[in-house]
Amino acid sequence: MAKLWSGRFEQNTSALLDAFNASIPFDQKLWQQDIIGSKAHSKMLHKIGLLNEAELQQIWQGLDAIAQEITDGTFEFNLGDEDIHMAIEGALISKIGDTGKKLHTARSRNDQVALDFRLYVLQSNQEIRQKLVALIQTLLEIASQHTQSIMPGMTHLQHAQPVNLAFHLIAWCCNFKRDIQRLSSSFERHCYSPLGAGALAGVPYPTDRESVAQDLGFIAPTLNAMDSVSERDFALDLLYEIAMMMMHISRVAEELVLWSSYEFGFVSFSDAFSTGSSIMPQKKNPDVAELLRGKSGRSYGNLISLLVVMKGLPLAYNKDTQEDKESVFDSVETALLSLEILTRSLKDLTFHTHKMLEMAKIGHLTATDLADFLVQQCQIPFREAHHITGKIVAYAEHKGVDLSELTQEELISQDSRIQIGVKEALGLQSSVDARNSLGGTSTQQTKTQIASLQEWLHLEMEKLK
Amino acid sequence: MAKLWSGRFEQNTSALLDAFNASIPFDQKLWQQDIIGSKAHSKMLHKIGLLNEAELQQIWQGLDAIAQEITDGTFEFNLGDEDIHMAIEGALISKIGDTGKKLHTARSRNDQVALDFRLYVLQSNQEIRQKLVALIQTLLEIASQHTQSIMPGMTHLQHAQPVNLAFHLIAWCCNFKRDIQRLSSSFERHCYSPLGAGALAGVPYPTDRESVAQDLGFIAPTLNAMDSVSERDFALDLLYEIAMMMMHISRVAEELVLWSSYEFGFVSFSDAFSTGSSIMPQKKNPDVAELLRGKSGRSYGNLISLLVVMKGLPLAYNKDTQEDKESVFDSVETALLSLEILTRSLKDLTFHTHKMLEMAKIGHLTATDLADFLVQQCQIPFREAHHITGKIVAYAEHKGVDLSELTQEELISQDSRIQIGVKEALGLQSSVDARNSLGGTSTQQTKTQIASLQEWLHLEMEKLK
Amino acid sequence: MAKLWSGRFEQNTSALLDAFNASIPFDQKLWQQDIIGSKAHSKMLHKIGLLNEAELQQIWQGLDAIAQEITDGTFEFNLGDEDIHMAIEGALISKIGDTGKKLHTARSRNDQVALDFRLYVLQSNQEIRQKLVALIQTLLEIASQHTQSIMPGMTHLQHAQPVNLAFHLIAWCCNFKRDIQRLSSSFERHCYSPLGAGALAGVPYPTDRESVAQDLGFIAPTLNAMDSVSERDFALDLLYEIAMMMMHISRVAEELVLWSSYEFGFVSFSDAFSTGSSIMPQKKNPDVAELLRGKSGRSYGNLISLLVVMKGLPLAYNKDTQEDKESVFDSVETALLSLEILTRSLKDLTFHTHKMLEMAKIGHLTATDLADFLVQQCQIPFREAHHITGKIVAYAEHKGVDLSELTQEELISQDSRIQIGVKEALGLQSSVDARNSLGGTSTQQTKTQIASLQEWLHLEMEKLK
Amino acid sequence: MAKLWSGRFEQNTSALLDAFNASIPFDQKLWQQDIIGSKAHSKMLHKIGLLNEAELQQIWQGLDAIAQEITDGTFEFNLGDEDIHMAIEGALISKIGDTGKKLHTARSRNDQVALDFRLYVLQSNQEIRQKLVALIQTLLEIASQHTQSIMPGMTHLQHAQPVNLAFHLIAWCCNFKRDIQRLSSSFERHCYSPLGAGALAGVPYPTDRESVAQDLGFIAPTLNAMDSVSERDFALDLLYEIAMMMMHISRVAEELVLWSSYEFGFVSFSDAFSTGSSIMPQKKNPDVAELLRGKSGRSYGNLISLLVVMKGLPLAYNKDTQEDKESVFDSVETALLSLEILTRSLKDLTFHTHKMLEMAKIGHLTATDLADFLVQQCQIPFREAHHITGKIVAYAEHKGVDLSELTQEELISQDSRIQIGVKEALGLQSSVDARNSLGGTSTQQTKTQIASLQEWLHLEMEKLK
Repeated sequence: MAKLWSGRFEQNTSALLDAFNASIPFDQKLWQQDIIGSKAHSKMLHKIGLLNEAELQQIWQGLDAIAQEITDGTFEFNLGDEDIHMAIEGALISKIGDTGKKLHTARSRNDQVALDFRLYVLQSNQEIRQKLVALIQTLLEIASQHTQSIMPGMTHLQHAQPVNLAFHLIAWCCNFKRDIQRLSSSFERHCYSPLGAGALAGVPYPTDRESVAQDLGFIAPTLNAMDSVSERDFALDLLYEIAMMMMHISRVAEELVLWSSYEFGFVSFSDAFSTGSSIMPQKKNPDVAELLRGKSGRSYGNLISLLVVMKGLPLAYNKDTQEDKESVFDSVETALLSLEILTRSLKDLTFHTHKMLEMAKIGHLTATDLADFLVQQCQIPFREAHHITGKIVAYAEHKGVDLSELTQEELISQDSRIQIGVKEALGLQSSVDARNSLGGTSTQQTKTQIASLQEWLHLEMEKLK
Repeated sequence: MAKLWSGRFEQNTSALLDAFNASIPFDQKLWQQDIIGSKAHSKMLHKIGLLNEAELQQIWQGLDAIAQEITDGTFEFNLGDEDIHMAIEGALISKIGDTGKKLHTARSRNDQVALDFRLYVLQSNQEIRQKLVALIQTLLEIASQHTQSIMPGMTHLQHAQPVNLAFHLIAWCCNFKRDIQRLSSSFERHCYSPLGAGALAGVPYPTDRESVAQDLGFIAPTLNAMDSVSERDFALDLLYEIAMMMMHISRVAEELVLWSSYEFGFVSFSDAFSTGSSIMPQKKNPDVAELLRGKSGRSYGNLISLLVVMKGLPLAYNKDTQEDKESVFDSVETALLSLEILTRSLKDLTFHTHKMLEMAKIGHLTATDLADFLVQQCQIPFREAHHITGKIVAYAEHKGVDLSELTQEELISQDSRIQIGVKEALGLQSSVDARNSLGGTSTQQTKTQIASLQEWLHLEMEKLK
Repeated sequence: MAKLWSGRFEQNTSALLDAFNASIPFDQKLWQQDIIGSKAHSKMLHKIGLLNEAELQQIWQGLDAIAQEITDGTFEFNLGDEDIHMAIEGALISKIGDTGKKLHTARSRNDQVALDFRLYVLQSNQEIRQKLVALIQTLLEIASQHTQSIMPGMTHLQHAQPVNLAFHLIAWCCNFKRDIQRLSSSFERHCYSPLGAGALAGVPYPTDRESVAQDLGFIAPTLNAMDSVSERDFALDLLYEIAMMMMHISRVAEELVLWSSYEFGFVSFSDAFSTGSSIMPQKKNPDVAELLRGKSGRSYGNLISLLVVMKGLPLAYNKDTQEDKESVFDSVETALLSLEILTRSLKDLTFHTHKMLEMAKIGHLTATDLADFLVQQCQIPFREAHHITGKIVAYAEHKGVDLSELTQEELISQDSRIQIGVKEALGLQSSVDARNSLGGTSTQQTKTQIASLQEWLHLEMEKLK
Repeated sequence: MAKLWSGRFEQNTSALLDAFNASIPFDQKLWQQDIIGSKAHSKMLHKIGLLNEAELQQIWQGLDAIAQEITDGTFEFNLGDEDIHMAIEGALISKIGDTGKKLHTARSRNDQVALDFRLYVLQSNQEIRQKLVALIQTLLEIASQHTQSIMPGMTHLQHAQPVNLAFHLIAWCCNFKRDIQRLSSSFERHCYSPLGAGALAGVPYPTDRESVAQDLGFIAPTLNAMDSVSERDFALDLLYEIAMMMMHISRVAEELVLWSSYEFGFVSFSDAFSTGSSIMPQKKNPDVAELLRGKSGRSYGNLISLLVVMKGLPLAYNKDTQEDKESVFDSVETALLSLEILTRSLKDLTFHTHKMLEMAKIGHLTATDLADFLVQQCQIPFREAHHITGKIVAYAEHKGVDLSELTQEELISQDSRIQIGVKEALGLQSSVDARNSLGGTSTQQTKTQIASLQEWLHLEMEKLK
C-alpha cells in the first residue's frame, strides 16, 4: 500500500528506512487505546456534524471488526504501515472505503499518539497502584503475626538496637505507601486529554474537546495544543515513579538475600520461589530476590533514556519522541511482574524468628538502654552516659561476653553512680518495649502503626475501585 | 577534641579517615536547620520535664550565640568535628558546660540529619516554586504583547503551520506549570517530621513528637522510626523535579540558541546577557542559553547519583546515605540560579517579529489549510484532500514559489473540485485564526489560555505566601 | 521436563517464577555461541580422555542437528528450559541419551554464559568497527569533493570563521576514528576465554583451557576463575563504547536537522530517507536524523542499567547479572542499524554549497582575519587588534553591512595604523586559505587530513579482515 | 577591568551573568596547566619569529611571578575574570604591559582550555594508575599470606564451594588490573596536543604545533582543528574509567561490610578506620567501606552529566562544554582519595580465618566434589551424578547434618554405585586442592596467579615511572 502521506514524494522510502523508522513493532501494544480514541473522536465528529449517523456507524463497526481481528490474531501488522495509527486507519479504509478517509479529520498523528500513549500510562499507573496495595496488605498480614518477634535492628549492618520484625516490615510498607502517593499525584496531574490539539496548533473545525475528554475518562482537555503534542512529562513521571519503586524493592531484596544466607539464617524461601545450580547440587538460590534487586538497573536506565531523548528538543513534535515508548513499556512490565512476584514470594517466606532472637543477643544491643538508664535513673547527662557505656562495652568485649551478661556488681564497679535496677533495663524485651515513643518499636507502637496503615490502605482501595 | 563517641575506641581515627569520612565541608550549609531543630527539640525536652527552665534558657542562648558566630564568620569549622551536628553540639558544650551534654537526649544523629536535610529540601522546594512563578509571569507578560505576532510553527524543525508567538510561549509556560505542581505535591508528601525517631527504633523517653513537628512547621510526625532514618525519598523527589525542570529549560534554551542564530534571526539577547570571543571580535554569543541547556547534564547526573547510592541498601541507616547532600545542594543552586537568569534574560530579549513573519511565508505553511478547505468546502474526504494538497505543493516547489503564491486558476487546474474562495483560506492570519478550537493558536484562544494561566498563577501565589 | 537441577527440590517452581526468572526469551539469541562453545568444550573433554571418540561424534552430531533445527525454526524454545544453555543441553540429551549427560562435565552455567556472552560481545565489537569504517569512508568520499566548498564555521551556533565543508566533515570522522580505537582496545582487553572456570573455583578435572581458548579464537584463558564468572567489564565496555558513538552520531544528527531546516537550507535529504506528515501535506521531515539523535537516549540508558546492576554485588556470580543481556543486545542492534542508515542517508544527501557560501557572507566572518592583519602587517599587539576590530564590527553593524563590505577608507578611518592591503585579507577564500597551520581549514591542510585518515583507515581495514 | 573581548559591546554584562557564566570558581584548579601551556606557546611564537628573545623572557618571567603568587595564595581571583585563562592573561598584561598582549597571538580560548583540561586529565589518569598499582600490591601481599586460608566460596550469597581467601582477593585484583589497562589505553588515545587549533579553524600564522606538542609531552598534535576544540572524549573516557573503578570498589566494599557484620565475622576494621555512633555506645561501624560503596553513585552521576551535556551539540565549541570540568574534578578527587583509603584500610584489616573455616563447614560445600567423584570414580554421567548428590544433600538436611558428616555407609545406601573412598573427597582441603585446573582455587594455582600478577605489575610500574 502506498503511504497515506505520500502525495508529494517521488520515490518510495527505502526498506531500510522503514525498518529504522517504523514504530509498529512496539507501538502495536497501543491498539486498544488507538481504537478507543478513534471511536471517541468519530463520535465527536458526528456530534458537530462532520459525520452523519450512517458514517459513524460504519466507522465504529469497522473499528470493532479490526479490534476483533487483532484479538483473534488474524490482523496483519506490517512494517510499511509505520505505526499502529496508520495500520488501523489503513485497515479501516480497506474495510469501509471512503468513509474511512473521513476519520482523520480534525486530528493529527501528533495528538493521536499523545492520546494513545497517555491512556496507556494512566492505566498502567492504576494497575501498579493496585499491585502495591496488595503488597502492603501482604506485608501487614505478616507484620500482624510478628509484633513480638525480636530481631537485631541494624545500622551500618551492625547490630544497633533490638526491634520487632513487624516494625521492620512496616518500614518497608512506608516506602511503598509513598510510591502509591507519588503515582496518585501524577495521575491527577496528567489526566487531561490532548486529542484535538492537531499537529501542533489546534484545528480549523468547531471541535468539542470537552466531550471527548469526558468520554475517555479524563478530567478535561489540555490547555495548549503545542504543549500537548510536544511534552512527555506524563511518561517521564511514570518512569521515575517506577524507578523509585524498584529502588525500594531493591532494598527489600537486598535484605532478603542477606537474610536467606547461611550467615544470617533469618528466612527461607519456599522451593517454589527458589532455584538450583547446574553444577552444585546442594544450592538453593534466592534468585527472585536477586533479580528484583537487579531490575532496579533497567528501571533507572529507562528513566535516563527518556530524559536524554527530551533534552534540548525544540518544540513542537520531533521524531526523537518516538523513542519514548519502549522504555515505558519495559518499565511497566517490570513493575507489574516484580510486584506480583515479590508479593507472592513473601506469602511463601518462612521467618526463622528463633534465629533472629538468638542473633539479637549478640552485639551489646542494649547499650543505648544502659546509657538511657544512666540519664533517667542516675541523672548523668547523655553525653557522659554515652561515654561511660562505651567503656563498659569495651570491658565486656575484653571479657568476651555480651553487655547483658555482666553482673550488677561488674556494672557498678565501672561507675559508682550506677544504681540498682540496671540489670532489668538490659533485657531485650524491656528494651524493645521501652521504645514506646510515637513511631517507636514497642509492641504497642508497632500495632498502632499497623492500624494506621490499614486505615490508609482502605481509603486508597476505595479510590482505585 | 576527642570524638564525642570515642568511649570504646582505643586509638584515634586516622587523619585520612577524617578527610574521607567527614561531611562538615559540605553539610555546614545546614547549620541553620540544625540550630532550629535543636531549639525545637530542647523545647520539647523541657515540656516533658527532661530539662528545667534554666537549662532550656542556657541551651537556647548557647545556640543563638553559635548562630551569631557562624553568621559573623568567626565560628571555626574543623574536619575533626565530622559533621555540622557534632560541631554545634561540641561548641555548645564548650560554651555552657554540662547542660549542653543533655541536648542529645532522646535523639540520634540519624534522626537529626534526617530532620535538617528535610527542612533544607522543603525550603528549597518553596524557593524554586517562587522563582518558577516569576518566570511564568514574565513569559505571560511577553506573551500578552504577541498574541498577533505570526511565526512559523514547527515540527521536526520544519515549517508546519503558522502560529502566534504568544501561543508558543504558552507552551513553555505549561511545562513550568507542571513543574510547580510536581513540587507542590512532593512538598505535601514529605512535610512530616522525622525528629524523635532516634537511631532507628524510637526512644525510651515520653517524647512529644507532635509538638516538635508543629513547632517546625510540619504537618505531623512520621509514622515509623526505622523508615524515618533510612529513607531519602524527599531528596530524590527534589532531584527529579529539578531534573525535569532543567530538561524543560534545556528545550527553551535550545530554541533561544536557534532563534538567535544568523539563520533564524528571531531574537537578540541584550548585551548584558551575551558574551564575546577572546579571538573573534565580531562574536556575540548566547552563552546564557547554552549554559542553561548544558546544566540539564548535572541535574540528571545528580539524580542518578542518589538513585545509585540508595540501590540495594539494607535498613536502617547506612553511611552511604551521607552521599545524599552534595548532589542536592548542587541541583538546588543550579535550579535557583538558572531560573533567575532565564527570567531576567527573557525580560531583556528582543523579538524580531518581522523576521518571524517573513519566515512564516516560506514552506507552504498553509498546506493544511488547503486540505481542510477541500474537506469543508469541497466535500472531499480528508485523506484524499491530503493527497491532492501534496500534489499541489509539489507543483509549487517545481515552480519555485510558495503554495500561497499560486493563483486560483493554478489551484483549480490541479483538481476541478477546488472551489472559488480557496485563495482566502491560504493567508497566514486567516490560517492562524481558523485554528480556533479549544487550545488552538487563534488570537482568541491564545488570550483565553493566557487568562487561564494567570488565574491559576494567582492561586498558586496565594499558596506560597 | 523436570528441571536438570531439581534433585533436592520438593515442589515445582511456580509458573510465575519461570516467567520472571527465565532468560530464554532473550538469551536464545546466543544459541550459536552456545553450540560453538559446547563443541570446543567437548573436543577438549575428548582430548583429556573424559569422552571417547564415539561420544564426541555423537555430541557434535547432536549439536549440529540442534543448530539446524534452530536455523530452520523448528526448534521449540520453552520457558521451562530457563535459559539457552539448559534448552540445548536438554535437547541434546533427548536426542542422544546418556552421552549427552556427559557434556556438562567440568563446566558450569556460570562459565558457560560468561563464554557465550563474551563471544557475542567480541563479534559485535568487530561488526560495529566494520560499519564505522564504512561510515568514515563515505564521509571521506564526500569530503574529497568539498575541499573548496566554503561555509560558515560556527561556535555557539554563531558564525565564527569561514571553513571548508570538507574540513567540517573531517571533524565528524575524528570522532568515529576514536570510536574505532576505543573498540579495538577493549577487544584486546577482553579477548580471553572464561571457559573452564566452573561455578567459581575451577574444576577438579585436568582440563586444557589453552586449547579451548585457541579453538575459539581467544588470545588465552582468563587468569582467575572467580573473576571469570563474576565480572562483566567486557559488556560494560561495549555499552560505553556504543553510548559514546551514539553521542557522536547525535551531534552529526543535530547538524543534519539544523542544516535541513528552511532557515539553514544547507542540505536536503533524499525522498528515500525522508518521511511526510499525516496531516500537513507539504512536510518533508528529517526523521532519520531525529531518530539518530534520539537513540543516544537508549544507549546511555543501557549503560546506566548495567552499571547499576553491578554496583555493590558481592562475588562471585549473582542472579542480578542475568540483567546484563537485554541492554547489550539493544545497544548492539541500535548501533549497527544506526551506522547503516547514517552511512546510506549521507550517500544520498544533497549539499547546497551555494546556500552555504551565501550564508558565509553574513556575520563578519573575517573579523579575526582583520585582527590578524593588524597584528602581522601593522605590528599591533593581538589584544589591542582584537579591540580595534570589535569597534569596526560595531561600526559595520550600525551601518547595516558586513565587515567585508566596508571600503578601505572606512577601515583606515577607524584606526590610522591600518594599512593598505587590508581589503584583500577580508575575502572568504583568502581567509580560509590563510588558516594553513597544521590541522587548519585551508584546502591544502584539509587534503592532508583526508589523506592521513585514508591511510589510517587502510591499516584498520587490514586488522579487521 | 573591562572584559578583554568587550570591543563591540555597549553595556557591561550583568553581575548576575558573571556569577552564572564564570568558570573561574572551579577552573582555577587548572592554573598550572594554563601557565605551562602559555610558556610552551610563547616559546613557539619566539621560534617562528612572532616574539623576540626579550619579549619571551618577559612573558616567562611574568608567568613565573604569577605562578608564585598563586602558590603563595596572594593572587586574587575574581569573578569578573570569567576564567583562569583571562585571569592569568590579564595579570600578565598588568605586570609586563604591551608584550603581554602578544601572548594570545595564534591561539584562542577554545584551544587553550582544550589543552589545559587535557593536561589535567592525562596527569590524573597517571596518578590514578599509580594508586591502583599500590592497591594491587597491597592485595597481593595479603593474598600471599592466605593461600591456604579456607573460606566458603559463594554464589548468590549462598555457600557454593570452598575456596582460598587468597584466590578471592585475586579476583578483586583482576578488576583493578583491567582498570589500569583501560586507563592506559585511553592515555595513549588522547595524548595529542590541541594547541594551535585556534578558535575552530586553525590560525593564519606559520605555527609549529609539533614542537609545542613535544615540549608538553604529547605524542603529536591533533589532526583537525574543529575536532580539537569541540570533542571531549578524553574527559568522558576518564569519567567512565573512574565509574568502572568505583563500581569495582563498591563490590569490594559490599563484601567488607558483609564480612565485618556480626553474622559473618570474617574481618575487623582497625579502630583507626572505624567510627562510632552518637547514641549507641557499643557501635563500631564500617563507615569507610560504606562510603566507598556509596561513592559509586557520584562517579556514575558525573559520567551521565557529561554524556548528557555533549548529546546533540553542533560543532564546534559551545558554551555547554564548560560544564565538563566540575564532574571530572569531582570524579578524580573521589578516585584518588578512595584508592588511598581502601589501600590503607586493607593494610589494617584483620582477617578472622578461623571463623571463615568454621563457616566453610556449613552448607554442604563439597557437594560438587561428591558429584565429581561419582563421575570420575563411579562412571556416572555428570547430569545423573548431580541428581544423586541433590538427593543425598536433601537427606543430610533432613537429618540436620552437613553432607561431609554423613558416613560412608549412609552415602552408599543412597546409591549402590557409590564407591569406597568417597569420604576422602568430601574434605574441605582436598576439595580446594582438587580444583587445580588453570585459574582454579588450589593452593598451587593460587600461587601461580599471584606470581603472574606480580610480574605484570612490575612491567606496569616501569611504564608509569
